[in-house]
Amino acid sequence: MRHYFPILDWSKAYSRETLTSDLVAALIVTIMLIPQSLAYALLAGLPPEVGLYASILPLVVYAVFGTSRTLAVGPVAVASLMTAAAVGKLAAQGTPEYYGAAIALAFLSGLMLLAMGLLRLGFVANFLSHPVISGFVTASGIIIAAGQIPHLLGIRAKGETLPDLLHEIWINLNDINIFTLVLGASTVCFLFWSRTNLKDFLLSRKVRPGLATVLTRAAPVAAVVITTLATAIFGLKARGVAIVGTVPQGLPTPSLPPLDLQLWSQIAVPALLIAIVGYVETISVAQTLAAKRRQRIDPDQELVALGACNIGSAFAGGFPVTGGFSRSVVNFDAGAQTPAAGAYTAVGMALATVFLTPLLFFLPKATLAATIILAVLTLVDLGAIRRTFAYSRADGAAMAATILVTLAMGVETGILAGVALSLFLHLYRTSRPHVAVVGQVPGTEHFRNVERHNVITAPDVLTVRVDESLYFPNARFLEDYIQDQIAENKAVRHLVLMFPAVNDVDSSALESLEAILHMLEASGVTLHLSEVKGPVMDRLRRSHFLDALTGQVFLTQYDAMLHLAPALTAKTLAASRRETSRNGA
Amino acid sequence: MRHYFPILDWSKAYSRETLTSDLVAALIVTIMLIPQSLAYALLAGLPPEVGLYASILPLVVYAVFGTSRTLAVGPVAVASLMTAAAVGKLAAQGTPEYYGAAIALAFLSGLMLLAMGLLRLGFVANFLSHPVISGFVTASGIIIAAGQIPHLLGIRAKGETLPDLLHEIWINLNDINIFTLVLGASTVCFLFWSRTNLKDFLLSRKVRPGLATVLTRAAPVAAVVITTLATAIFGLKARGVAIVGTVPQGLPTPSLPPLDLQLWSQIAVPALLIAIVGYVETISVAQTLAAKRRQRIDPDQELVALGACNIGSAFAGGFPVTGGFSRSVVNFDAGAQTPAAGAYTAVGMALATVFLTPLLFFLPKATLAATIILAVLTLVDLGAIRRTFAYSRADGAAMAATILVTLAMGVETGILAGVALSLFLHLYRTSRPHVAVVGQVPGTEHFRNVERHNVITAPDVLTVRVDESLYFPNARFLEDYIQDQIAENKAVRHLVLMFPAVNDVDSSALESLEAILHMLEASGVTLHLSEVKGPVMDRLRRSHFLDALTGQVFLTQYDAMLHLAPALTAKTLAASRRETSRNGA
Repeated sequence: MRHYFPILDWSKAYSRETLTSDLVAALIVTIMLIPQSLAYALLAGLPPEVGLYASILPLVVYAVFGTSRTLAVGPVAVASLMTAAAVGKLAAQGTPEYYGAAIALAFLSGLMLLAMGLLRLGFVANFLSHPVISGFVTASGIIIAAGQIPHLLGIRAKGETLPDLLHEIWINLNDINIFTLVLGASTVCFLFWSRTNLKDFLLSRKVRPGLATVLTRAAPVAAVVITTLATAIFGLKARGVAIVGTVPQGLPTPSLPPLDLQLWSQIAVPALLIAIVGYVETISVAQTLAAKRRQRIDPDQELVALGACNIGSAFAGGFPVTGGFSRSVVNFDAGAQTPAAGAYTAVGMALATVFLTPLLFFLPKATLAATIILAVLTLVDLGAIRRTFAYSRADGAAMAATILVTLAMGVETGILAGVALSLFLHLYRTSRPHVAVVGQVPGTEHFRNVERHNVITAPDVLTVRVDESLYFPNARFLEDYIQDQIAENKAVRHLVLMFPAVNDVDSSALESLEAILHMLEASGVTLHLSEVKGPVMDRLRRSHFLDALTGQVFLTQYDAMLHLAPALTAKTLAASRRETSRNGA
Repeated sequence: MRHYFPILDWSKAYSRETLTSDLVAALIVTIMLIPQSLAYALLAGLPPEVGLYASILPLVVYAVFGTSRTLAVGPVAVASLMTAAAVGKLAAQGTPEYYGAAIALAFLSGLMLLAMGLLRLGFVANFLSHPVISGFVTASGIIIAAGQIPHLLGIRAKGETLPDLLHEIWINLNDINIFTLVLGASTVCFLFWSRTNLKDFLLSRKVRPGLATVLTRAAPVAAVVITTLATAIFGLKARGVAIVGTVPQGLPTPSLPPLDLQLWSQIAVPALLIAIVGYVETISVAQTLAAKRRQRIDPDQELVALGACNIGSAFAGGFPVTGGFSRSVVNFDAGAQTPAAGAYTAVGMALATVFLTPLLFFLPKATLAATIILAVLTLVDLGAIRRTFAYSRADGAAMAATILVTLAMGVETGILAGVALSLFLHLYRTSRPHVAVVGQVPGTEHFRNVERHNVITAPDVLTVRVDESLYFPNARFLEDYIQDQIAENKAVRHLVLMFPAVNDVDSSALESLEAILHMLEASGVTLHLSEVKGPVMDRLRRSHFLDALTGQVFLTQYDAMLHLAPALTAKTLAASRRETSRNGA
């Protein structure tokens, strides 16, 4: 019970002090979240109020189910872009079908996350490698930023891929609206300046550090207020500046998501992708922040929590939500102590939905575009390609490929290509276990790789050390390897397989070992094992492999050599004895 | 050049003696292949002559490209069943569209195999685990055998799944044709008896062993001849016994396979499945036989060869072919020395196609059904479930699931479920690397798992030995594990990661190590490494991890303990010294 409802844990010790910290954090996050949630709704191609709806119920749900003390969930840039890409294929923006599909997407990806959590399948997320995720996020950030340029210029241009977008912008460049451009460009400059310099500026004017932080965080809200007022006062709507317009006032009426199985099957793949990408983002943020306070995150419970949040978002008429990086950091820095801070943020967002929406009528879309651009620029990390490539060529190539495919072919193809590439690299790597022919280090009982060390080997004994567990993807490699070794070394009469690092031998590998045994038998070579771990030995005893084994199982490789090449080993043993007693004396 | 044309290797040393051996083997295989190729064509829902066409050109092609000296390719039971399942969805049996799709299937799976071979992707086949393949083959055998029962009873019944088939047989049981039943049942009995007893019977009648073997192999041909004569003489066609009818005489006219991209996209998945299942079967047979004569198989070149065979089959109007187990064993036992034996078999099949087809008019379909039943019964191995389950529950469960899904939902769903299950099990297993907290074995420089051995540990030093390479699927596990360990052991001030078995640290794992470093730093714990392998160290030096490392990198774990817990280690060192000099003296 307590496992699935972490709220039961932390709520017991909830004090007045914690309440104060949580309330302050909630206030700061609310101020940040209002413009962001409007902007991400527009990015997803949805009416602005949907962004507000997605920032209320999910936060309350996370407070009940989440294991992170400071994670802030809500609409985020990448998931919004993925929503637009998925839903845009099924219906036209602005239609009830489009909105319904976005709700269904939240619901279905919520169900998937919940199921994965209850089945404890969190490990599935590990199969998106870091380079692929990082490349995907960078490329998404570039597409999102490029997609905002038309809003800043006051022109129309749409496109799911970077080439399409740039082409459309180029074609429509004549339609630039100068008022929109001035408004948009100055908002971008102001936001950029405030992010880098506002705090120092305020501190130099003797503003208290705490207040300076809050004021800096409130800069996007200030931009919203100023540009809205400017638009209203100077009648910029008549000059062609696009505005948000009427935003329905009041809380959403809870409703069932559309139970349309045909629709569900059409959005199943994007729902899964959004679920996994969102989860990976969420868990990374949660773990980073938890570590700073030596707290624990339960990855499987986070699946349950994020699933419940998305189901909650769907019931409240919202779209897919995940744990956001920047807002969680803000929440953490502002001193949030428990997930209750999230619930208070939800109250703040609900109040904004009830009271502030009429004020948003004259809010220019260019302002929201500027907010988005500033938010996603932190996602773009092109230097990571160089760093990753320097560390590992394969990983660097995977990252570059994911970026290129995402930019050129859109987010869905991009992430699918990334997943496929990750899995392929993984499968390729695990299909080649690390094995080495070893020999005795003179004067010791140690055995080392013949290619790297100066070691002693007997001509008729070949010892192969297997450095990984044997299971179906790599079992045949060992067969091939030994076949090659035996074909090359015609003098060999004994083969010793040294298993110090073999933790498991599955049925496929057992069949490979049997195939190796028969192959060696046919070639007149005896097969021995050495240094087999206890659990592996127990399991082998349950098969008939040990009965059929032509040679012996030795406890140590030294025993094996003592038995199979006594003359050679005795010599180095004597050397070893002399050496040891000299040291010991 | 020689790599892609192994014929250049073996043809140089081709002698008169080899020619004789190959000719004898070819004769025996031809006798066996005539009824089989007719039967498998019918199993695939194709006219009987298509089976003959698929047994000519592919054999010649394999002789040029194959690396196995004794593999015999041609139509086989499982691939024929998969062909029927794939093509049956697109067109009705007997139509030109059905035949065209079967040819396209051979062509496309040939192209896929060829591409995989040229890209050296043979390792992909390793991801079908043995239990899954074995379960799939068993279930296919059962479905095939059950599918022949209607032919033996002279009734109509079709179905891709076992329940459907049995249901249809049950419904139509009233239509049994007694003549067909007698003919079919007696053929089954004769073939069964001849397989188990004919050779001994002939030997007891003083027939020469060589001749006895050939006569035993010819038993199916005898059954064909006798039942065909009986049907013709007693006018059984008029009594309702289904016969093969007119088989076009002469060789197929080579033609281009249909270049219909829409058709190709419809059969892409089945083509890939047939390619992979066929390849796995082929490579297993080839390696088993090669090992007996200490010969080499090149798995990637086998992909090229099998791909070329299927493309050849398509050009000659045939359907998908693979290396068959029983016919390859017969070829091997009959003394085939080179792939030329396959080419001679092709000549034999061509002669049969030209001269024997008119004689097949009265051949009862029940005879072919009996041939198929006898052939596939060797595929069914239900005991393997028990054996596999005893060895490994996970593998046994995977096998049982594959069998059940294949029987209940057909071959395509069955093999896809098997592949998915294999991959899932693999991913699950590799997402949990083997790690252990270790301590010092008293009186030695060895360190062992604290849970299994009586070892010494320092209260403020925690040593975690990682027994596998670190890469993206398992990197997060290590993060979680260390987070847990640190949260549990509040006294810990130093964490040593011992990397004796870590052969690789990819970029994702590097990020995890950095995350661990930051987490430990925030918790006031110093991170050290020990026993890092050379290549891993080289790679870490290319990142900034070592600069940020709070602790040191120790050459051995003993050095680490000597440095971090000198008091403790010195004591055991002294003990060790005393021990050693006592032994050494």
